[in-house]
Amino acid sequence: MAQQSDHEAAILDAATLETAMRRALELATQGPARGVNPQVGCVILDADGRQIAGGWHRGAGTAHAEVDALSQLAPGAARGATAIVTLEPCNHTGRTGPCAQALIDAGITRVVYAVSDPGVASAGGAERLRTAGVAVQAGLLADEATALIADWLAAARLGRPVVTLKWASSLDGRAAADDGSSQWITGPAARADVHRRRAASDAIIVGTGTALADDPSLTARDANGELLSEQPVPVVIGTRPIPDSAALRRHPHTPLFFDTTDLASVLRELHANGIRHAFIEGGPTLASAFVAAGLVDEYLIYLAPTLLGGSRTALGEIGVGRIDEQHRLTIDRIEQLGDDFLVVARPEKRN
Amino acid sequence: MAQQSDHEAAILDAATLETAMRRALELATQGPARGVNPQVGCVILDADGRQIAGGWHRGAGTAHAEVDALSQLAPGAARGATAIVTLEPCNHTGRTGPCAQALIDAGITRVVYAVSDPGVASAGGAERLRTAGVAVQAGLLADEATALIADWLAAARLGRPVVTLKWASSLDGRAAADDGSSQWITGPAARADVHRRRAASDAIIVGTGTALADDPSLTARDANGELLSEQPVPVVIGTRPIPDSAALRRHPHTPLFFDTTDLASVLRELHANGIRHAFIEGGPTLASAFVAAGLVDEYLIYLAPTLLGGSRTALGEIGVGRIDEQHRLTIDRIEQLGDDFLVVARPEKRN
Ligand SMILES: NC(=O)c1ccc[n+]([C@@H]2O[C@H](COP(=O)([O-])OP(=O)(O)OC[C@H]3O[C@@H](n4cnc5c(N)ncnc54)[C@H](OP(=O)(O)O)[C@@H]3O)[C@@H](O)[C@H]2O)c1
Ligand SMILES: NC(=O)c1ccc[n+]([C@@H]2O[C@H](COP(=O)([O-])OP(=O)(O)OC[C@H]3O[C@@H](n4cnc5c(N)ncnc54)[C@H](OP(=O)(O)O)[C@@H]3O)[C@@H](O)[C@H]2O)c1
Repeated sequence: MAQQSDHEAAILDAATLETAMRRALELATQGPARGVNPQVGCVILDADGRQIAGGWHRGAGTAHAEVDALSQLAPGAARGATAIVTLEPCNHTGRTGPCAQALIDAGITRVVYAVSDPGVASAGGAERLRTAGVAVQAGLLADEATALIADWLAAARLGRPVVTLKWASSLDGRAAADDGSSQWITGPAARADVHRRRAASDAIIVGTGTALADDPSLTARDANGELLSEQPVPVVIGTRPIPDSAALRRHPHTPLFFDTTDLASVLRELHANGIRHAFIEGGPTLASAFVAAGLVDEYLIYLAPTLLGGSRTALGEIGVGRIDEQHRLTIDRIEQLGDDFLVVARPEKRN
Repeated sequence: MAQQSDHEAAILDAATLETAMRRALELATQGPARGVNPQVGCVILDADGRQIAGGWHRGAGTAHAEVDALSQLAPGAARGATAIVTLEPCNHTGRTGPCAQALIDAGITRVVYAVSDPGVASAGGAERLRTAGVAVQAGLLADEATALIADWLAAARLGRPVVTLKWASSLDGRAAADDGSSQWITGPAARADVHRRRAASDAIIVGTGTALADDPSLTARDANGELLSEQPVPVVIGTRPIPDSAALRRHPHTPLFFDTTDLASVLRELHANGIRHAFIEGGPTLASAFVAAGLVDEYLIYLAPTLLGGSRTALGEIGVGRIDEQHRLTIDRIEQLGDDFLVVARPEKRN
C-alpha cells in the first residue's frame, strides 16, 4: 500500500487513509458523548499503512486520543508514521499538554484529520504541526466527523450550549386555560417526543416560576413513567428559593440552581461544565427572556388542535414593539404527532 | 332503452337515468351559484327514455327547475314521463307553488332525484309524490349533486350561512406587534389565498373595530390590486357608526351594517338574504365572539414563521376558563403557502 517509505513522510493511498479514518471515528464513539470534551478517535499507521495503534478520549482529565494512541507504542516506534485523527490535534496546554506537540515529539511525519478545532484556546494545532515540518491534510470524512460532535462544535463556536426552546400551545398560542390548567393540551405522541428530546439534551432548564408552580421532576420518562436511560441535568434559573422538598431535588443528577436572571452568564457557566445542548422548557417568562436575548438556536413548538383564548400565552413580552422588530424564523419542518403537530424552526439569522 | 312503456311507470335502465341526471346537473350550473335558492336542474324523459324537456332554476322569484322543464311541454305531454331532478322536488308554497304537486298534476309517474331537501319549509316533496302514487327514487349521483350545492345544503341544515373564520398570526398567536403594526406578518402567497377565498364567499364580515381602525375595502383583489370577478358582500357588525367616507362604502356591493352584537340574529338575517357562506375576517374581538358562540364551521389559521409576543393576540376571550372547556378542533390539512402555512380545521364536534 505504501508508495514510499523509510525516513520520508509515507504517502499512503486514499483508500487506506479513509479506512483508517472510519476506524478512528469508531474508536471516538467509545468515549463519553457528553461532557466538556468531544468524542475523538486516533489511529496510527506505519509507513506501510498498517495500524500500529488506536486511541480515543475517555473524558475530561484523561489523555486526548492522540496521546492515548501514542502511549501504546514503544519509544521511537511512531517515527515516520501517519496519525489519523477525527478532530484537529489541539494546541492547548490544559490538564494535558498540546497534542500537536506530542505528535511532533513522537516523530509523526504526517497528520490527517477530519474537522478543524473551532476552540479559541485549542485551535492552531495544524499550524504548529506544519511549522515543525509535519505534512498535514484536513477534511477527510469531515461530514461524518462533524455529525458525530455537532453539538460540541456548535457550542464551541457559540461559547455556550446550543439552546433549544420548547413550548406546547393551542393554535392561538396559549399554554394553559385561564385558571392555569393545561393537562393535557397536547397528546401522548407529542409528550413522548418531548421526553425523547429531553433525554438527548445535556440539561433541562426551567424558571423558578415553573419550578414553584408545577414542582416538576425534570426527568426524561417513557410512556409508563419509567426513567429513560439518559437523563439531562436539571437546571433552575431565578432568585426565588426552591424548597428542599422539590421533586427535582430527587433527580438522578444533582440540580444546578442559578440565583440570577443573567441568562448569558448562566449559559457560559453551563458550557464550562460540559453542557453542550440545553433544553429550555419554560415557563413563559423564562422562555420570553431567552427569545428577547437572542439566545435561542432551535424552536420546538408543539401546536395542539385546540383554542383556549385568555391570558396564558406561551410567550409573553419578547421585546417586539414594532412589526420590523419581529423575530423571523426559518421552519425546518413540520411533524405530525398524533393529533398535534410540531414546528421545528430556527432564527432566520443570528440576532 | 325502455323495458316497459305506455300508461304504467316507465322502468328506464340505470345508464339512461344516470345520463339524464348528468344532463340535469349540467343544466343546474346554468343558474346562479349564489342567492337564496340552490342551483337545480331537471330533465324529463318519455317512456322510451328520450329527453323531452330540460329546465333549471334561474334565481329567486323565477320558476323552479321542474316547473321550468314542464313549461316546455304541451298539456298532457308529460303523462307517464319520468322526471330527473338534482334536488328533491319541493313541497313548499312560496313565490312558486310546490314542485311535487306540479309534477303530479302533469301526470309524471316516476321521479328520480339526487339529494334530499334539508329545508324545514320545503322538505316533504318525496312523501307527497309517493302519496299520489308516483314512483320515487332518491340518491342517484348524490355525491356530485351534493358537491354542487354544498354550501346551500349546509346553510339550509344550519339555518344560517356556513361560517369560515380566518386570522393570520405569528407562531405565538399574535396578529400584530404591540403598536398595532401588522404589515406584513404573512407573505404574498398567503395573502393571495385569502383573496381567492374572499371571492369564493358570499359575504365578508368584520367588526366595527376593524372597520374603524383599518378602513378596509373588503374587496377580493389579485396581486396587482385589481378586483377579482366575484366579490363578497361587505358586512360590518357592531353599534359604532361607520363614517360615510369609509372605503367599504365604495365596494361593488352595497355594504350591510348590523347595529347589534347578536351574532346569531345577524347570521339568520344574512341567510334569509341568500348568504350561504360568510367569511369572518376579524378583528380579534369579533372573531373571539364567534368562537365563544360556537358559530364557526371552518377555521383558516394562517401562521407566519415569526414571533411577536406582546398584547395583540389574534383571539382574545373565548369563554374558556378551565382546560376541559377548550374548543378542540379537527385539522383537515396544513398547506404551505410561501414561507407561511395555513391550518384548515373545524370544530371537533358541534358545541
Ligand atoms: N405549556 C407549557 O409548555 C409550559 C411549560 C412550562 C411552564 N408552564 C407553565 O408556566 C407557569 C409558570 O410560568 P412563569 O412564567 O411564571 O415561570 P418561569 O418562566 O418558569 O419562571 C419565571 C422566573 O424565571 C426567573 N428568571 C430567570 N431569568 C430570567 C430573566 N432573564 N427574565 C425573567 N425572569 C427570569 C425569574 O425568577 P425570580 O423571580 O425567582 O428571579 C422569573 O420570575 C406555570 O403555571 C407552568 O405550568 C407551561
Ligand atoms: N391579523 C389579522 O388577521 C387581523 C384581521 C382583522 C383585524 N385585525 C386588527 O384588529 C384590530 C381591531 O380589532 P378589534 O378587536 O378592536 O375589532 P373588531 O373585532 O373588528 O370589532 C370589535 C367590535 O365588534 C363589535 N361586535 C359585534 N358583535 C360583537 C360581539 N358579539 N361581541 C363583541 N363585539 C362585537 C363591537 O362593536 P361596537 O363596540 O361598535 O358595538 C366590538 O367593539 C385592528 O387593529 C386590526 O388591524 C387584524
